[in-house]
This record gives sequence, structure tokens and C-alpha cells, in this order.
Amino acid sequence: MTTAYSHLCATFTRLSHYNHLSAIAGWDMATMMPSAGSQARSEALAELSVLSHQVLTAKQVGEWLKQAGNEALNDVELANLREMRRQYQQSALLPESLVQEKSLAGARCEHAWRVQRRANDWEGFSENLREVVRLSRQEASLRADATGSSRYDALLDMYEPGMTSKKLDVLFGDLKTWLPELLQKVVEKQKAESCIIPAGPFDIEKQRQLGLKVMERLGFNFDAGRLDVSSHPFCGGVPQDVRITTRYNEDEFLSSMMGVIHETGHARYEQNLPKKWLGQPVSNARSMGIHESQSLLFEMQLGCSEPFLRSIYPLVNAQFGERKGLDESNFIKLNQRVQPGLIRVDADEISYPAHVILRYEIEKALIEGEIEVEDIPALWSHKMQEYLGIDTVGDYRNGCMQDIHWTDGGFGYFPTYTLGAMYAAQLFQCANHAIPTLQDDIARGDLTALFQWLQQNIWQHGSRFSTDQLINNATGETLNPAYFRQHLENRYL
Amino acid sequence: MTTAYSHLCATFTRLSHYNHLSAIAGWDMATMMPSAGSQARSEALAELSVLSHQVLTAKQVGEWLKQAGNEALNDVELANLREMRRQYQQSALLPESLVQEKSLAGARCEHAWRVQRRANDWEGFSENLREVVRLSRQEASLRADATGSSRYDALLDMYEPGMTSKKLDVLFGDLKTWLPELLQKVVEKQKAESCIIPAGPFDIEKQRQLGLKVMERLGFNFDAGRLDVSSHPFCGGVPQDVRITTRYNEDEFLSSMMGVIHETGHARYEQNLPKKWLGQPVSNARSMGIHESQSLLFEMQLGCSEPFLRSIYPLVNAQFGERKGLDESNFIKLNQRVQPGLIRVDADEISYPAHVILRYEIEKALIEGEIEVEDIPALWSHKMQEYLGIDTVGDYRNGCMQDIHWTDGGFGYFPTYTLGAMYAAQLFQCANHAIPTLQDDIARGDLTALFQWLQQNIWQHGSRFSTDQLINNATGETLNPAYFRQHLENRYL
Ligand SMILES: [Zn+2]
Ligand SMILES: [Zn+2]
Repeated sequence: MTTAYSHLCATFTRLSHYNHLSAIAGWDMATMMPSAGSQARSEALAELSVLSHQVLTAKQVGEWLKQAGNEALNDVELANLREMRRQYQQSALLPESLVQEKSLAGARCEHAWRVQRRANDWEGFSENLREVVRLSRQEASLRADATGSSRYDALLDMYEPGMTSKKLDVLFGDLKTWLPELLQKVVEKQKAESCIIPAGPFDIEKQRQLGLKVMERLGFNFDAGRLDVSSHPFCGGVPQDVRITTRYNEDEFLSSMMGVIHETGHARYEQNLPKKWLGQPVSNARSMGIHESQSLLFEMQLGCSEPFLRSIYPLVNAQFGERKGLDESNFIKLNQRVQPGLIRVDADEISYPAHVILRYEIEKALIEGEIEVEDIPALWSHKMQEYLGIDTVGDYRNGCMQDIHWTDGGFGYFPTYTLGAMYAAQLFQCANHAIPTLQDDIARGDLTALFQWLQQNIWQHGSRFSTDQLINNATGETLNPAYFRQHLENRYL
Repeated sequence: MTTAYSHLCATFTRLSHYNHLSAIAGWDMATMMPSAGSQARSEALAELSVLSHQVLTAKQVGEWLKQAGNEALNDVELANLREMRRQYQQSALLPESLVQEKSLAGARCEHAWRVQRRANDWEGFSENLREVVRLSRQEASLRADATGSSRYDALLDMYEPGMTSKKLDVLFGDLKTWLPELLQKVVEKQKAESCIIPAGPFDIEKQRQLGLKVMERLGFNFDAGRLDVSSHPFCGGVPQDVRITTRYNEDEFLSSMMGVIHETGHARYEQNLPKKWLGQPVSNARSMGIHESQSLLFEMQLGCSEPFLRSIYPLVNAQFGERKGLDESNFIKLNQRVQPGLIRVDADEISYPAHVILRYEIEKALIEGEIEVEDIPALWSHKMQEYLGIDTVGDYRNGCMQDIHWTDGGFGYFPTYTLGAMYAAQLFQCANHAIPTLQDDIARGDLTALFQWLQQNIWQHGSRFSTDQLINNATGETLNPAYFRQHLENRYL
């Protein structure tokens, strides 16, 4: 007998095939495509996205979802059905017209932003942004009405299922009580220590070789993935063929090296998602926060730790030799340097949460209708001063116009960065307990046990459990921000 | 009012978007994809091809095609409608079951062939091939019944619309009367001349640089295309973003260089197809024969001509210096060397037609049911002896098992290679008359006038005219094989 559930599986397999093509064409667009291909590529991708939307929100899918609830399903199938329902509801909830309007307004705002940002043109930008906010509020209302949540929570839930602003207020409220002070202390402490910036040039091909060697050390499967170049680094492709990117700058090599370590964390999660369910929603990564926990575990917990930096120092040395500032001890200092600055993506791990909390507070108020677009700059300056002690008045370009997220209505995404950092600290601490030899292993460059632990506790589960369950199963408790604080104090004080 | 014709245009635009994704994913598969991605990629591409087939053969499309015949259309629209009808009929004619059976049998035969060829295993191969032939005959019968043509002609027409075996028999029959003798004469003549094979290694990166320089000279638009590496060179992508490939061998650089020139001929045709009709069938390249005429015009008519070789000699010299065998005069000899051999893809331009005629005669008899698979080896040996004077008995691997075409049922394709060579000779001769300074231009490296002529006479027309019309408009007569003979005698005697 053909069950409703099996019809659903076939439909989602089909969608995963479309998604495969879209992922590869998207990767190609960012890495390989010559400029004149852009228009045709956008049209082809838009066609596929319309098709995927139609297939996912077909009336029949809604009926199968109802029927499948009465069929005899095992645990994994039930989890799969839950994720299917989630995807269906997220897509089917919005009228086609709003989807289209929002996508157009977002594309317009993002496109103009690329020029306006360079020109520091807040007036021009805010006009487009107002329209994006108007439509995002509409979207949030519709989603909130359907789920009974607040408007902002309805958006947040799309990236981080189960997370609410009530929980975030507690988590971030706690952070705000100790983070600014910690930051100041660490900056003071580091002032006393000398740290030398090694002078370039750093040959691009050597940087690439270093990246590949580090990826190898981190267990990246090169039979199922690649490293390439794009202007904005990302992890793309499909679990069977994961494409990560970086960008190179001849003047310094650390940001590319650390970027590669970060994306390799994303990549190993993708490469190790449950093979037997691939193509079904239950095989997908759990959430944006959990995804970021893997990249930040690789980059911050592991990558910036002293034993790891010592273990890869010979690789760095092999590429760039003994130049000034590249002795082992200064190499470690360079990677643990704390310097509050204007730009989120350049921030160290202590400053980073301040950037996120600031954005969270502003975007929440914006979506809930408590503030308007014209209130953003003043709030931004005020909070930058308060959380990071930095004056940004009038500098929109390196202030509230620096990120792409809001331009196409990605409200609710920012918190996942700091959730990821917190999950990472908790998971790494737990792995440390579970593997008594871990610090020695890392120093020796043997990461087998760590990866086994991640495989067993995170990667292999895909979306089978809720985030709370997943973290609870892995660490014996749900998200506990104390580990993050502990980590920062241990490393930097 | 929305006309049936405009519905058709929208449908074919949609199909062109799917084709875009399929072309890029196919290119990626051959150039970039790591091995483990293969299964998922094949599935994704198969899904898209099923979808395209459904969209193209939908009942509505058949109805619109009928209705559009009664609508007021201009010349271009009528040509577009003709090409739409052609595509629809080619797809709608076969029952889904036969399409599927043939695709499975072809995939199985091709897959096994990769091993069997290496093992010289004709027994094993012929078993699979019999099944492919059986299904190709069924396909040919269905197509023949619908069009009133012979079985083989029905297949031939898919690659070369308007071509028939009756015409081919005349063209190839003529060739057979003079080609073997010419070949022998040229081989004798060249025996008396010394030609030195320059010794490698030829650095791969330098070969790549040479290829790029030559592409630049040949007007390749790098804003709308790329050069990459694949094990079987091809020209892929879409007109807005044309992807050509080559392969490198450290021991010699000429086959890669000439391969790049060949693919650049294909690429410039694609890059210059009519912009305003892109996405519609009328914008497509006219036929496989015309496509090959462009690549062979670039490679053979232009690329192997003395003035052109002289004009790019400095580029070669700049990469590889003055080594023995790389003086200008020997460089020209190397590119005009005639040596009958076993392998079609390695053949010089005099031997090449013999390889094609041999295959044409065998595949025609096979599809028409005049011979069976087990008759192929004996026929092959006999004809190789007769046309090329080469003994191949027992060497299946370098004999009837050397090509991929038959493994998945590509019967009817081979003749387009030699049709291309003939069209190329005729077009080039005509361009020579139209541009009195052409030989001097070429020697000076100025190809502007030649490309303008090709643009005006071939590229910009896409599929607007039939092949006969196109060639007649361009040259004042339909295909005339005398130009090809003239060209060979001029160059080699
Ligand atoms: Zn990340
Ligand atoms: Zn070709």
C-alpha cells in the first residue's frame, strides 16, 4: 500500500534534487561564473525556486501531511514528518503576492545597498529599508497569528526552531552584565603584552596550500567537497559534495586561515549528516545556531586554543618560514588578540556577542513596531558606546549599514551567531570531560576522538531531535551560557 | 490577448531555464565535482530531465502548437514555431517506457564499456550493445513511421535536420573515390620531408597560458565564458556563459592547443547566437554539422593554415622558448602532419573522413537491420584496410570499441563531423572571396573581418533558416563537397 507518508517522502526527495541543482548553481555563481552570466543565472534560479515553492505547497502535500499523522510511523519517520510539516507551513503560510513583493523589495534594497553603503548614504538606504521592514512585519504578523507567538519570535523560529525572545532576553541579559567589563579587562591586560603583526606579502598559493593542509588535519573529506575562492566566504553545496570558500589577501594570512577552519566546521557537519536519510528533511542540519556551533567549535574552541595553534604551527612555518612575528608564541598571541572595533565580521570572540546583542535588540523592536527605521542610527550609536565603548555617530557605512542581513529582510538571524558560540562552548567543555586525553590529543594533532564525539552527539542526528533535546542528550543539560563565560575567562584572563 | 504562440514562448523560456541549470551542473560534473558527488548529481540531473520532458510534451503544448499555426506570426516567429514543433515531436513521439528503457540500457552499456574497452572484451560489450541496438531500432521505427523516412534517416535528422542517407551516400561516395588515393600521395610526399617531434616536458601552466592567449586572439569573450580542464574536452554552458574545456599532457602541447582552438570555434558560435531570441528554440545553433563547421573552420581552415600558425608562433615561442623542433617552420609542419592511424579522435583532416564514412556505413546497415552486432568487427577490419590501409583484426579496443557514441545509442551522429568539415571548407573559401585581404589579415593576427563575416552569415541567425538556406544565403549554393577536396589538395599536395 502506498501511504501518505511515502508520497511525502517522494515529494521531498524531488525537492532535494531541485535543491541540489540550486545549491551548485549558487556556488558556481559565487565562485566560477563570469560576469555576463549573471542575469541568465538569476532567472534560472528564480524559475527553480518558484517550482520548488509550488511543489512544496501543493494542496496534496497538505492533505498527505494530515493523513500521515494517522499512519504507523517509527521515531525517525515521526521526526521527519514534523520537519516536513514545518517546511510546508513556513512556505504555505504566506500568500504568493507577499512572497513576491518581499523578494522584489529585498532584491532592490540589497542591490542599492552595495552602492549606498560605500557612499555612506543612510537617507537613500533607509527609504528602501522601510519597505523591507513593512513587508517583514506583514510576514511576521501572518506567521505570528498562525503560531500564537509574538511577531519577532515568529521570524526567529524560522532560523532557530524553539528559540524565543523571552529565552534570548535572559541569555543576552546575563551576557550584558559581565561582557563589557570582561572586554575592558582583557584589553587592558593585552595592552601590557607585545604582539607583532608579521609583514606580508603572503603568497596566495601558499595560503591556499596552508588552508588545504589545515582542512586535511580537520578531517575534511576531499572526495566529497572542495575549497574555492569567493568574495564572501561560505559553506555551500550538498552533503555529498560540500563546497567551502575563502578569500585571500596578500597582506595577511590569518583571516583566511581562520575562515577556512570556520567553514570546515560547517562542512564536516554537512558531510556527516545521516547518510541513510539524505534527501529527507530529518537529515538536514538542526538549526542555524547548531550549524554555527560547529563552525565556532572548530574556529574558536579548537582553532584558537593554544594546543591546536601549536600543533598547526609547523604547517604555517613550512609555508611562510621564520619571518618576524611568525614565531610560535607570537602566532598564538595573534590568534587570541582582543580588539573592540566597528565591524562585526572582524570581531574577536569577546566583542562579537556585543555586536549581536545590539542588532538583536534593534531588530526585535523594529519588527514589534516599537521603533521605526529612522530610529536605528541613534540606537546604534548609543549601544555601540554602551557595549563596546566605541563612537560611531555619522558612520553609517561601518555602523548600521555594514551587514547584508536586513537588506533582504533576514530579521531574526543575528542571534544564531551568539547562540552558536554558546552551544560551542558547552559542547567543547563536555567533549573535554568525555575525552580525558583531549588536550594532549589536540597538541599531538590527533583529533579522532573529538570528531567521533561530535559525530555521535551532533552530526549523525540531523534534525531528528529538537535543539533542546539534542543539546540535552549531548551534554546532560539544555543551553547553559555559563560555559561560554567560563571559556572566555579561562582563555583571556 | 494572450496567444497560443505567447504561451509557447513562455513554456520554452521555462525550459531554457531548466536547461541552463542542467548545462551548468553537467559542466561542473565534468570539471569540478569530487568523486563522491556523482550519485546525487546524476539523480538531480535525471529529475530535471524528467521534468523538462513533462513540460515539453504536455498535452497543452501540442494544442498550442496547433493553434499557433493559425495566428499571425512574422518570419522569425514562424521559424521559432517550426523549431518548437520539431522539439515537441522529437520528444512526444516516444512512449515514456521506451525512453526509460533506452536510457537504462545506454547507461549500462556505457558504464560497462569503460572497463570492457580496456580489456578488449568484445564478447561482453556486444551483449550490451545488442540491447542498445534493439531499442534504437524501435526508436528509429517509431520516428520513421511518423515522418515517412527510413529508419536511419529518422535518427540522422535529430542531429542534422534535413540531411538524409541518400544525400550522404552521394557526398561520401564521392569522397571515397578520391580520398584514399590522396591520403597515400600525401603520406608519400611527407615521408621525404623531415619533421621533428619537440621533446617535453611542456609545463601545464604554460600550456594553459598559451591556450588563453590563443582564445583571446580568436575573440573568445572571457566576460561570458571560461576555460577549464576535463578528461574529455567539450564546449558546454549556455550562450551567456560558455564553458570550454581541454586536457593537458606534459609530453606535448599541440593537441591541447589545437583542442582549445576547436572548442573556441564552438564557443564563439554559442556566444554570438542571436541575443534577442535567447531562451527560444530559434536562437539555438542550427545543427550539429553547422556547429562542427565552426569548430573545424577555427581548427582546420584557420588554425592549421600557414599564415595563422605563423601569427601565433610568437605566443608559442614566448611560453616554450627555442627548443629543438619548435622553430617556426617545424611548428607548421607538425600541425599539417598526415598519418593514418587507428583512432578517430587523433586523426588528421585527410584521414578523418575515412573514419567517419566507415562508421556511417556500419551504423546505417545496423539500424536498417541489414547487419547485426556480431557482423561489426569483420566489417570494421575490412573497411579500415580499404579506406586507410590499416590492419585492425582482433584489436577491438582501438577498433570498433573506441568511441562512446554507440554505447548509449547515439546512432546518426558520426556523419555530422565530416559534414562539418565540408561546410567549413565551403564557408572559409567564401569568406576568402568576400574579404580580399583575409590571408594578410590572418598573417598579421587581425581576424576582425573574418569574424564579422561569420557573425553576419552564420552566428546571428541561430536556427532561423534551414541548413540548406543558411549555407545558400552565406555561400550562394548548398553544400558542395568540392571545396573540401580543393582545400585538402591545396594544403597537402
Ligand atoms: Zn558560520
Ligand atoms: Zn567539435
